[in-house]
Amino acid sequence: MDPVIVHLGDISQHMQQLSKGFLFTLVIGTTDTSLIPGITIAGAKPELTHYTPAADAEYLLLGRCRVIPIVPMTPDGKPTPALITRAAIKLTGAGVLVVNAGARVRPNIPIIDLQGEPGRDIRTGLAINRSVVDRVFENGAILGENLARISKAIIIGESIPAGTTTAMAFLVAMGYDAWNRMSSASPINPRDLKITVVREALKNAGINRPLEDPLEAVSRIGDPVILAIGAITIGATKQGAKVLLAGGTQMAAVLAFIKHMYKDVLSNVAIGTTKWLVNDRTADLIGLVREIAHVPVASVNLDFGNMPYEGLKAYEGGFVKEGVGAGGVSIAAISRGYSISQLQGVILSDYEELLRSMGNTT
Amino acid sequence: MDPVIVHLGDISQHMQQLSKGFLFTLVIGTTDTSLIPGITIAGAKPELTHYTPAADAEYLLLGRCRVIPIVPMTPDGKPTPALITRAAIKLTGAGVLVVNAGARVRPNIPIIDLQGEPGRDIRTGLAINRSVVDRVFENGAILGENLARISKAIIIGESIPAGTTTAMAFLVAMGYDAWNRMSSASPINPRDLKITVVREALKNAGINRPLEDPLEAVSRIGDPVILAIGAITIGATKQGAKVLLAGGTQMAAVLAFIKHMYKDVLSNVAIGTTKWLVNDRTADLIGLVREIAHVPVASVNLDFGNMPYEGLKAYEGGFVKEGVGAGGVSIAAISRGYSISQLQGVILSDYEELLRSMGNTT
Repeated sequence: MDPVIVHLGDISQHMQQLSKGFLFTLVIGTTDTSLIPGITIAGAKPELTHYTPAADAEYLLLGRCRVIPIVPMTPDGKPTPALITRAAIKLTGAGVLVVNAGARVRPNIPIIDLQGEPGRDIRTGLAINRSVVDRVFENGAILGENLARISKAIIIGESIPAGTTTAMAFLVAMGYDAWNRMSSASPINPRDLKITVVREALKNAGINRPLEDPLEAVSRIGDPVILAIGAITIGATKQGAKVLLAGGTQMAAVLAFIKHMYKDVLSNVAIGTTKWLVNDRTADLIGLVREIAHVPVASVNLDFGNMPYEGLKAYEGGFVKEGVGAGGVSIAAISRGYSISQLQGVILSDYEELLRSMGNTT
Repeated sequence: MDPVIVHLGDISQHMQQLSKGFLFTLVIGTTDTSLIPGITIAGAKPELTHYTPAADAEYLLLGRCRVIPIVPMTPDGKPTPALITRAAIKLTGAGVLVVNAGARVRPNIPIIDLQGEPGRDIRTGLAINRSVVDRVFENGAILGENLARISKAIIIGESIPAGTTTAMAFLVAMGYDAWNRMSSASPINPRDLKITVVREALKNAGINRPLEDPLEAVSRIGDPVILAIGAITIGATKQGAKVLLAGGTQMAAVLAFIKHMYKDVLSNVAIGTTKWLVNDRTADLIGLVREIAHVPVASVNLDFGNMPYEGLKAYEGGFVKEGVGAGGVSIAAISRGYSISQLQGVILSDYEELLRSMGNTT
């Protein structure tokens, strides 16, 4: 089986640029939407979801976490997708820059600050103050321009709990049918809860027909990560860089953001994700992207079915699926000449190291 | 006349790596040492010196300032050396990342934060808490590693008012004879004042023989910028990048920092500065570097003698001389194939634009 499957368009230009080396940017943020019980499994308890992006970023750069004592993992051993990202980064030797779009918990690592703020619960209808949105957009675009001057291939990943819910709200506000197409980190996608939350957000934001300004949509019912990734991508692609949006259905929201802000750059944009995400029958990334813009979508064929640990095998059962840029950075590792089995070998040994560090060998 | 003069060692490896493209990192910080009247001209009044690094960084990235209404310039029109740096960046199309090592005023741009703090007045003998020093060192080294994975040629510049005074204190604390060898942004170097300040700092820090630990020396009488540049350089050079320290006698302090922390990497380090700095007869960069380590030192032969404005001609009279990486980034522009006259052409037109924006045509 091919290590990378192309679902839409032609990803060869991106793959070729990635094969010469790339820069990975992880954009982190939080919203109080993730505090709604049951909306996300990215955190053992709702209030702990605010630690997850910082912990993911620390694990990615350091191989260990500082804001929490252990690496993000469910009690029964299902690890954060940052495990996959870190393995692909180790293989390729790529540089990593972490960007704070607005995270309530700040990681203890060097981090690029866009002067954003955490988002409120979108049910308030006032997610982020408009002046903050404008500032983050401008700072993100300037950063993107400068990153493009350093590297012509940029991968951007995300870590924001409940990000599929805020992305659904953003997409609906911009006039796209995202109601039943967003993925989830859980095999039992809490779609009804998400829909209830988004409906309440739209009502309280007074949105009853599609908005035209994506900055307005972010400010009312979006999140800081869609905004920052959109801004960085626009800045970087205007300078001629190829940007691979590394993520699942949240990246459809980024795509819509870009299309409505500055659609001329879409020819430099592609989406890279995992097999697990594309196979999610409770979601429809491909359909969403088709509705928004003609950009390539590819997925990496990682397969944890033969992994000797249940925590990893769980990925085949639909747990986690994607996040922290796992799919896109894996695709980059493939384009740099590494095989799926090399990548899975590093993932396995890093996972075993994590288990040892936790004093746990289940 | 050669556009670049080599004063010590062989800079050809650095020039060759720079010719393929480079990344410029500006490290900013402040200390309350700059509030001592007469110690620096980097700010119209002592309390305004805290705005200068932020304003320099904003001008570099945006071409205009946000924290203050105008670009740093003396009332009679002598501009910040960021004018030179920005011109060289525009020519070469290099990417710029700004790093906050500990600045009291934060620029309104995307900025990489190392979780540092502004330094106190070094006369207290307790410049920066040791726990903060350790954190900045670790974060700076991680950043340097990641930057080296993105670019094999890195130029690092500084903006910190009164930085030559804190660098003098640091060098003396580490056992080097820096007493009469530090440069100044003023043609009338306030050497006696600097020496008085450093003596008081050493006394209050209880330093009466050379220290061996540069982190301890930074903590007692150093500044956040020496620390951060040293850390980034160590992280980057360990990954095989060539680092050009872009600055004057402050970079001798960085060199001493690196030598006493991790001297194996010195073969990847060089210093790049301006003709004006090397010609400063009140200072002795070359003698200082000779005493510390065998690293190449080169200067760029910019000449503002024929500029049609007094504010620019003042550079020939010993005003400003260096800062914000001006010399090193100019050397990189030369190695990228641009001529001195091309560079000076951009500097002149940017200066005229600044004057117009100030409604001033003197």
